[in-house]
Amino acid sequence: MEDKIQLLKEKLHEIDDINSAVSLLSWDQSTYMPSGGAPARGRQMATLSKIAHEKFTSAEIGNLLDSLQSFSEENDSDDAVLVRVTTKDFEKATKIPAQFLADFNVHISQSHQAWMEARPNNDFAKVAPFLEKTIDFSRQLASFWEHDHIADPLIDMADEGMKAESIQKIFGELRAELVPLVKAISEKEKTDDSVLKKHYPEQTQLDFGLKVIKEYGYDFVRGRQDKTHHPFMTKFSIGDVRITTRTKENDLSEALFSTLHESGHAMYEQGINASFEGSPLAGGTSAGVHESQSRLWENLVGRSRGFWSHFYPQLQDTFSEQLNGVSADEFYRAINKVEPSLIRTDADEVTYNLHVMIRFDLELALLEGKLSVKDLPEAWHARYQSDLGVQAPSDVDGVLQDIHWYAGSVGGSFQGYTLGNIMSALFFDEAVKAHSEIPSQIASGEFETLHGWLKENIYQHGRKYTADELIEKVTGGPLTITPYINYLKTKYGDLYSLS
Amino acid sequence: MEDKIQLLKEKLHEIDDINSAVSLLSWDQSTYMPSGGAPARGRQMATLSKIAHEKFTSAEIGNLLDSLQSFSEENDSDDAVLVRVTTKDFEKATKIPAQFLADFNVHISQSHQAWMEARPNNDFAKVAPFLEKTIDFSRQLASFWEHDHIADPLIDMADEGMKAESIQKIFGELRAELVPLVKAISEKEKTDDSVLKKHYPEQTQLDFGLKVIKEYGYDFVRGRQDKTHHPFMTKFSIGDVRITTRTKENDLSEALFSTLHESGHAMYEQGINASFEGSPLAGGTSAGVHESQSRLWENLVGRSRGFWSHFYPQLQDTFSEQLNGVSADEFYRAINKVEPSLIRTDADEVTYNLHVMIRFDLELALLEGKLSVKDLPEAWHARYQSDLGVQAPSDVDGVLQDIHWYAGSVGGSFQGYTLGNIMSALFFDEAVKAHSEIPSQIASGEFETLHGWLKENIYQHGRKYTADELIEKVTGGPLTITPYINYLKTKYGDLYSLS
Repeated sequence: MEDKIQLLKEKLHEIDDINSAVSLLSWDQSTYMPSGGAPARGRQMATLSKIAHEKFTSAEIGNLLDSLQSFSEENDSDDAVLVRVTTKDFEKATKIPAQFLADFNVHISQSHQAWMEARPNNDFAKVAPFLEKTIDFSRQLASFWEHDHIADPLIDMADEGMKAESIQKIFGELRAELVPLVKAISEKEKTDDSVLKKHYPEQTQLDFGLKVIKEYGYDFVRGRQDKTHHPFMTKFSIGDVRITTRTKENDLSEALFSTLHESGHAMYEQGINASFEGSPLAGGTSAGVHESQSRLWENLVGRSRGFWSHFYPQLQDTFSEQLNGVSADEFYRAINKVEPSLIRTDADEVTYNLHVMIRFDLELALLEGKLSVKDLPEAWHARYQSDLGVQAPSDVDGVLQDIHWYAGSVGGSFQGYTLGNIMSALFFDEAVKAHSEIPSQIASGEFETLHGWLKENIYQHGRKYTADELIEKVTGGPLTITPYINYLKTKYGDLYSLS
Repeated sequence: MEDKIQLLKEKLHEIDDINSAVSLLSWDQSTYMPSGGAPARGRQMATLSKIAHEKFTSAEIGNLLDSLQSFSEENDSDDAVLVRVTTKDFEKATKIPAQFLADFNVHISQSHQAWMEARPNNDFAKVAPFLEKTIDFSRQLASFWEHDHIADPLIDMADEGMKAESIQKIFGELRAELVPLVKAISEKEKTDDSVLKKHYPEQTQLDFGLKVIKEYGYDFVRGRQDKTHHPFMTKFSIGDVRITTRTKENDLSEALFSTLHESGHAMYEQGINASFEGSPLAGGTSAGVHESQSRLWENLVGRSRGFWSHFYPQLQDTFSEQLNGVSADEFYRAINKVEPSLIRTDADEVTYNLHVMIRFDLELALLEGKLSVKDLPEAWHARYQSDLGVQAPSDVDGVLQDIHWYAGSVGGSFQGYTLGNIMSALFFDEAVKAHSEIPSQIASGEFETLHGWLKENIYQHGRKYTADELIEKVTGGPLTITPYINYLKTKYGDLYSLS
């Protein structure tokens, strides 16, 4: 038994080594690779991914897992959980026929290319046939699993255990709270956030962000930050978890909050139990839980009044000219300005979830066959009108804005953003229940208690528990929007003097 | 036949993809990796190297090559040469027993570690037993091949076709010319190169180097430069050939000449026939030929009077304070100062080869059993005394100075440096014979004719020809030191007013 576990771990570590190399090839492609390297790079990533996939779906792994089933069912050691998690991954990987995967990947690459060309020309008609085919592929993909709802297997890939029905229920509750909250705020005087739009030199912005996340506890001995077109976090080992950011010299919030966000993802990965290294357990447990950690550090900490009572004097020192005469309160209001808008990625904390829910509902309708691709732009505009009260002048800022659907992901790739927001407040609440000094510590620039609680209760477990299990373990109950809604209502009720 | 060639190419390309990933893992380790990534990185590189080795030495490749033997012998197409070169590589890779390779690699890692600790403490006794074992391993390694001289198979790994005897002969001729040349120069007044030792800010140094190699023709669309502890060139594809450098703010020559040097290696790799991509043909053909290209651009071009007649005014503009009142001639003399010294990597053009030949002779004597490891430090000092007239105060600047022997390379890893110097003049001579305008073009900062000639006659061929074949093809004769000696005598005869 011990021998078999050891052999399994070795095989899995080998596969992880290959996947880590793919991650580095990808990181380099986004950071430093000269453009001439692109054709070979695509090939190199495909070759290594194929080898990793072949090794993982091999009969050898299958046989090892089979022979370890009874062991894994009998106990709850890390090794037993490893076998269970790996078995689930193995079943997922082997259920999808290789030919289907190859055909889908070819299609995704063509669809992505079409979107790249269609978007600047506001040409939805160009991508429509590709999107139709993506929906066909997605339905086929889902059909390899038994399911209640056609989207369930797709959702499960990112947020294991979640289902369309349960998400629709919780999103329904959230929407019922958010729409009136947004309306109430919209009736108030608009926040002036022009102070954020002055000229802020790039390097100074970057340095400030790095200083903050060092205080957070992001470990630079095991990480670094580089610049990319889109910010992301990536991991090559628990000892090497990197983040990226982008700056806009006329927008102070861009680099700063993306840095805080990615540091949350990265601290999660850096905090995983070192003994899980190289195994399927060494990763965040779901898209939602991962996002909860990025949002927690970005928003619940990084956009809080306490945080800025500590950091604003330093920021004002750093940008003394730009922030001259701007009070901490004015600044706090500027970074928390709520305003219904067209673009999801630029949205504030309150309206952001409405963007996500629109997409989630529409992709479900597409998969169910209740909405046809040709009617999608109209359905999009209608929902933006009803939920946010805004109308995009074109599809560029409408249905063409996000890459997800055009890169093969219809169903399963948006819900995690809002699940993450909901969970961020849920977990933060528990941390504060356990350590009531956390808010005052944040106001003193001390984050060790919070970081320690997250390591202990969330990070270290990696994929040992599913999101549901983790929530149950941490809160003693199921996923609920209550703490999140309370957080939003308290914070924005105060900011916008809502009764 | 066509099918088998195609299949072979595909298999080889897959292996090349894996090896390219290893190169990127290594580049990242030297450039940007946080220290926490080190343990996993070593593992990742080992895993991928092992997979590439297994795939290359597989029965599938062996059978493909067998079935293509008659085709490869019948004609001289690129495909036929590919089969011949791959067959040679395959035989090399399969002749070494896997267990031997594993044992040797473990030993190398221990030896390297011992050297890292012994060197700062001037403790040769500590590494002596490791070096003895390395010599045993090297002799065993050589014994897997039939050979005249025990070092021949080791030399052949880096400089295919070269043998101890032929190198000793040509090195003997060279030494007979160099020792009196160095003596004659030593009797002249010492050159003052203190102008190079002023303070030169790092970024300005880097920018100037980049400007020069852009003029050379190093393609930045397919390359980039980063900083590392030791400068090197590495390739991930013909479309992505990178270089690194290091700067010393109190030494203007460090970054500049290492940049010119590495750009020569890189232009070679960038210039390889694109149809060779992903195959064993897509690389430099030997250590010597590779070094000839780096040395050509570093020394024959980059330390020439003509080059500086063009670039010195720009350099003087760039560093107006430091170079104020320093004439082009003074500067030219400073960068070509000849002075016997202790450290190979700091040596000038003339004395450099004496350093190399001392090492080559000593490692041959070690392998032959004519010199014992315990007598090595004394033998080292004796040769430095007789050849260069200098005495190292300790083994730190003596037998402990180079990593090579302590990283498993005894025999085969030094000769390429001097072979490269010899070939650099040989090839440059041919280029000038074909285009007599090259020297005057260099003096105008124009490098296209020279670069074009090198692409046409050297670069594009990759490994299609061995060094000997290439020299024969380009010069119509065998390797000869005549052009190199003429170059040195003319240049330094003029610089030091030798009769």
